[in-house]
Amino acid sequence: MARERLTVPSRGTLFYAQSGGVTAVINATASAVITAARARKLRVLAGRNGILGALREELIDTSHESAATIRALAHTPGGAFGSCRVKLKSLEDDRPKYERMLEVFRAHDVRWFLYNGGNDSADTALKVSRLAAEFGYPLTCIGVPKTVDNDLAVTDTCPGFGSAAKYTAVSVREAALDVIAMADTSTKVFVYEAMGRHAGWLAAAAGLAGRELDEAPHIILFPEREFDQAAFLAQVDATVARVGHCVVVASEGIRTADGRFVADAGGGKDAFGHTQLGGVAAWLAGRVKDALGHKVHWTLPDYLQRSARHLASATDLKQAQAVGKAAVEYALKGMNGTMPVIVRTSDAPYRWTVRPAPLEEIANHEKTMPDGFIREDGFGITDAARRYLEPLIRGEAPPPYGRDGLPKYVRLANRLVPQRLPPAGF
Amino acid sequence: MARERLTVPSRGTLFYAQSGGVTAVINATASAVITAARARKLRVLAGRNGILGALREELIDTSHESAATIRALAHTPGGAFGSCRVKLKSLEDDRPKYERMLEVFRAHDVRWFLYNGGNDSADTALKVSRLAAEFGYPLTCIGVPKTVDNDLAVTDTCPGFGSAAKYTAVSVREAALDVIAMADTSTKVFVYEAMGRHAGWLAAAAGLAGRELDEAPHIILFPEREFDQAAFLAQVDATVARVGHCVVVASEGIRTADGRFVADAGGGKDAFGHTQLGGVAAWLAGRVKDALGHKVHWTLPDYLQRSARHLASATDLKQAQAVGKAAVEYALKGMNGTMPVIVRTSDAPYRWTVRPAPLEEIANHEKTMPDGFIREDGFGITDAARRYLEPLIRGEAPPPYGRDGLPKYVRLANRLVPQRLPPAGF
Repeated sequence: MARERLTVPSRGTLFYAQSGGVTAVINATASAVITAARARKLRVLAGRNGILGALREELIDTSHESAATIRALAHTPGGAFGSCRVKLKSLEDDRPKYERMLEVFRAHDVRWFLYNGGNDSADTALKVSRLAAEFGYPLTCIGVPKTVDNDLAVTDTCPGFGSAAKYTAVSVREAALDVIAMADTSTKVFVYEAMGRHAGWLAAAAGLAGRELDEAPHIILFPEREFDQAAFLAQVDATVARVGHCVVVASEGIRTADGRFVADAGGGKDAFGHTQLGGVAAWLAGRVKDALGHKVHWTLPDYLQRSARHLASATDLKQAQAVGKAAVEYALKGMNGTMPVIVRTSDAPYRWTVRPAPLEEIANHEKTMPDGFIREDGFGITDAARRYLEPLIRGEAPPPYGRDGLPKYVRLANRLVPQRLPPAGF
Repeated sequence: MARERLTVPSRGTLFYAQSGGVTAVINATASAVITAARARKLRVLAGRNGILGALREELIDTSHESAATIRALAHTPGGAFGSCRVKLKSLEDDRPKYERMLEVFRAHDVRWFLYNGGNDSADTALKVSRLAAEFGYPLTCIGVPKTVDNDLAVTDTCPGFGSAAKYTAVSVREAALDVIAMADTSTKVFVYEAMGRHAGWLAAAAGLAGRELDEAPHIILFPEREFDQAAFLAQVDATVARVGHCVVVASEGIRTADGRFVADAGGGKDAFGHTQLGGVAAWLAGRVKDALGHKVHWTLPDYLQRSARHLASATDLKQAQAVGKAAVEYALKGMNGTMPVIVRTSDAPYRWTVRPAPLEEIANHEKTMPDGFIREDGFGITDAARRYLEPLIRGEAPPPYGRDGLPKYVRLANRLVPQRLPPAGF
């Protein structure tokens, strides 16, 4: 790939940062942001490790990256500039941090701040915009949606979710074929642990793997429903008796009636004081083994489910790019304190568009699965859920592969611009 | 798909059965067997749940499946006729079972027996062929190689391995990009558990995800090397200090100096007598957390790694089909007690061919990683290993996808032929 240096006569500087857990398509959003900004002769600085880049004045000069590299970013998973798990507190409690950010922005002539993340990031973008207004510093703050958890308010769906959902549905369908083949003499119960601490969207997406009652997944456990061990085991038992095997998909966030995370029951310390790491799937598998005696296997895909760019949803990819492009447009129009959100205009045929929404309506809210999406017995999804979910995993968008059989993911140079301020110790 | 009934004027009956853990491409072998047999006007009966189908006289009549369905089988993971985990003992100890099999074969005019599996299956095929000879029953027995573990002797590689290897390398590369993005404020160590109870081939394949010393995976743990906890933790610590994060790939079969499986240390019973299921990755993650204090994530892909047909290796697919086709040819030539094996004739360009090998040389042997494939420090692969592994994951062979965004995997009717013998109670 040519590494020509792009010389852009800057009309001002846009700061872009990635936040929270990364996804298969957050870099596609970054790619769209940089492409749109370059077309408008804007300079893009990216935060090294998210908002920490602003606090530490570690600003990546994206103009060092060739057009080919920025295009390749659209098919590269992970967070190309580094992300972070940092939740800033209120303007009062964390005032020095917010002020430092503005200082850094001012020092580098940053006029537009795009923060690509979930509801915490929307909150941060909103607070920065308020402080900038208080200080009379002209800054337009835009939130850009991203999360595999699909739990942002207002937007119909969150970029990153569709690809993780496709990974989940495909993986469960494939593993189920394995279990069906082995069940007669070996594994009868298989448990798949899906991400989703507070909302069961990804677990729900597994429901797309089968259509009939006796097709896998036979049981889905949602954080939106109390986990009842006896009812669960009875359902597993009945399914094995009827179908010969049972595929369970459990959200990592399921809780018992007393509000405790089931995942915590699986961990803790052993008799020697050593940490035992477990999780929901391992724990459920243990209960099935003890109570029913079936041979059981389980999987914890963990990061694989959110970084599987090789199995991205084409719909999700397009939406990730669309919100990136829209974010730059909103920024230049001075639509401070907004986020481009996905609006669904039709289920069949699936149609969507992007519109601006106020960050106030998104920050710190959490969208769980509506009641109408969960089957009455609590163990599966409804037709309404299918109508919502199915378009989101539609279409394939594989990355290019090299002669070595591996996807050609790109790595950026990530060169920092010289610092202009004394270090602030963040 | 049309469901026309194929009327094949039979020249005799071929019995095909799948054995042991299934793979992403064992059905591609089945598809090739059936296609080759149909071209020669042979009838193919398949064992329902492997060799149990023969013992129970549960024989699937594959002529009910259309040509389109048999073609689609080539892109469908799992074991379409059902597999089994049954190891027959010696001819003396399990004589009634072997005799019953011959009885069933005789009752259905089975002249050719193709057993698609690992070294146990090669052993079974060999014993059946010996008993048939003793009884003067004309039966040609052929082993057909299959295993994601890649541990069969004689053959250069085992169909099923290349696709699982590609899944492993791609997944580790993708997850590593996630870890790199998160490491500054969150996960610094990531542990991936690969299948391989006795041989480290799949863990080794993860090594293809990176080329440089500081690229993931930074540490690979092989069952061919003693697990030394102190050395492991020191290596993790040094890697995090140098690179900022550390990706570990551990074979499920690693053992400590006293020969105990590390995986067993992670399980057992808790204080209440409940089963704790753990595994190697969870246990290693716990040790990293306790000893080094880093935030750690881990994954146990389990069945996902061997059923990921969506990420199959084109090389592996071709080889799975080639051994199926060759098996039918060998059968018709009466090459009793053989297995079609893959012979590598050149690394670069990669060239291979199929030749017959005697089952005696394969049955009950186990091929572990050669010393020259493991780096001297025991934590990585050598260039020789790369030269061996890399061609096996080359090329993509995605399944067709439906409008619903899911792979179009086929399900067979699996209709049994009428039984001709009284039940034998197996």
